[in-house]
Amino acid sequence: MNISLKEAARNLLEAEKIVIASHVNPDGDAIGSSLGLMYALQGMGKEVMVFIDDDIPAIFSVLPGYEVIRRPEKGVEKIRADLFVILDTSPDRIGISGDVVEAHVLNIDHHVTNKGEAEFSYVDSGRAATAEIVYELIREMGREFTGEIASCIYTGIATDTGFFRYSNTTPFTMRTAAELMEHGARPHIISEAMEQKSYAVVKGMAAAMQTIERFCNGRAAGLFMDRELTAGIENTEGFIDMVRVIEGVDVAVLLKCKEEKLCRVSMRSKGLDVAKIAAGFGGGGHVRAAGCTLEMDFADAKRAVMQAIEEAMGA
Amino acid sequence: MNISLKEAARNLLEAEKIVIASHVNPDGDAIGSSLGLMYALQGMGKEVMVFIDDDIPAIFSVLPGYEVIRRPEKGVEKIRADLFVILDTSPDRIGISGDVVEAHVLNIDHHVTNKGEAEFSYVDSGRAATAEIVYELIREMGREFTGEIASCIYTGIATDTGFFRYSNTTPFTMRTAAELMEHGARPHIISEAMEQKSYAVVKGMAAAMQTIERFCNGRAAGLFMDRELTAGIENTEGFIDMVRVIEGVDVAVLLKCKEEKLCRVSMRSKGLDVAKIAAGFGGGGHVRAAGCTLEMDFADAKRAVMQAIEEAMGA
Repeated sequence: MNISLKEAARNLLEAEKIVIASHVNPDGDAIGSSLGLMYALQGMGKEVMVFIDDDIPAIFSVLPGYEVIRRPEKGVEKIRADLFVILDTSPDRIGISGDVVEAHVLNIDHHVTNKGEAEFSYVDSGRAATAEIVYELIREMGREFTGEIASCIYTGIATDTGFFRYSNTTPFTMRTAAELMEHGARPHIISEAMEQKSYAVVKGMAAAMQTIERFCNGRAAGLFMDRELTAGIENTEGFIDMVRVIEGVDVAVLLKCKEEKLCRVSMRSKGLDVAKIAAGFGGGGHVRAAGCTLEMDFADAKRAVMQAIEEAMGA
Repeated sequence: MNISLKEAARNLLEAEKIVIASHVNPDGDAIGSSLGLMYALQGMGKEVMVFIDDDIPAIFSVLPGYEVIRRPEKGVEKIRADLFVILDTSPDRIGISGDVVEAHVLNIDHHVTNKGEAEFSYVDSGRAATAEIVYELIREMGREFTGEIASCIYTGIATDTGFFRYSNTTPFTMRTAAELMEHGARPHIISEAMEQKSYAVVKGMAAAMQTIERFCNGRAAGLFMDRELTAGIENTEGFIDMVRVIEGVDVAVLLKCKEEKLCRVSMRSKGLDVAKIAAGFGGGGHVRAAGCTLEMDFADAKRAVMQAIEEAMGA
């Protein structure tokens, strides 16, 4: 059932024991929203727990509360709570976090794909990040922003907007960030932490960038990682950006060969509908960011993806 | 003579024919401030010219007015104007732009090193970019922000703050950007343009990144480009960031061997005073960003820089 921001705030105000969860493969918005809301509710004397069914990347240790996030375990007794708040995803992407809680469900999200099918749903796809909605909820509840709350929410907003560079960035985003900075969020500390890479990943990135190839007369380019290269790099976050920035490139591809007949493909575009290309391989996504998995070996997958992009471009 | 923002605005309002100039090796703030102020003054019916004594990098062609920036020529008749506005630098870094104009001088800058020695100076080192001061001047003059003005000023602010990530970013920065977006500045268009690199530079970056080496127990790391590597890459903008992001690295170094006995060194730090290290080689800069030139061949220069950093770190 879709409810208003005011009603969502009232649900939170009325609950005493609250469990918060967010999606697997957690990003800055999942973690920042969860911890920001946790601190705000704890400040009102409520009992709050945060669950994420995944490892939390070490870069987020810059955030207060990093160490209190729990990973749900199978077969334990369910926690009875007043409210189970699911942030930044519909309830189907929280792993087994839902299995450890018995409570009314409040789902808060900014993804346009969230159909609002939870018990209570507040979805605002006009917001750049769920953290922006958490900011609005805290204001609606009449609470102050502490330094802890501000740092967490700022991180959610900054990461989901690519540090205020993506097209989802709005004047509201900028003004919210301004206010959070006044309450203690420090952009350079957070951005430095978010950008950190291990020495091995930077060296792997250098090796991977050597494989960049242009096609479609330079309107597309790909970074093609064979099995050996893929196996040697734990984290390819940001690699596709090195392709995306090349002059004249509309479509950027990152192909990783994970197993003998299994290749993962990510695509970013500045115009062409890459969701359509991904769908042709059983994948999906958005017009400008999509992905798919090909059950082919490296050479075949590379050829198939390049061909599909060439056809879509009418080249 | 130092004057107030109000007086600077009055100087601009009273002038009919105005020449604007900014520094050589122009960046987004030099170009964005100059063009933003030009459009605002032209909107008031004034005659305005912009001079920069250098090439204007092609990435700035995304800005309106890119093509009207002139390069001063030697030996031409001086332009008589009412006001010569020097932006984002003290008057000593504008090449020969000053030689082509005869007018009262108004210097507007945000650099703390600007001592305010021009005929009229307005320097506010609390502002993250000169573009922020141009924004204030336009408001002070009671003018509206057109889409052209907003895009130019936004670019100055965004580039000088590393897209709102550096420690100079303030709540004022964020709120100014919000207002400029409402007047037509588009963050994703501008950021995509600013990040563009040629295919050759991206491939060169990959090759350069292969040379990254850690030292001082991982507290320092350097990207060491010998003569051959240096000669093959036209632009190393952003290369040092690939060193700076490595986990545990306080001091990042970029060394480029330009000629047989000439190496340029840039250093970035998160704590250690690299201006002091640079000064030891006759260079200079800020605590966290400094540079120097070594008249040594590649191997000697590399050894000397690594040793100086090791000594400064007490390793």
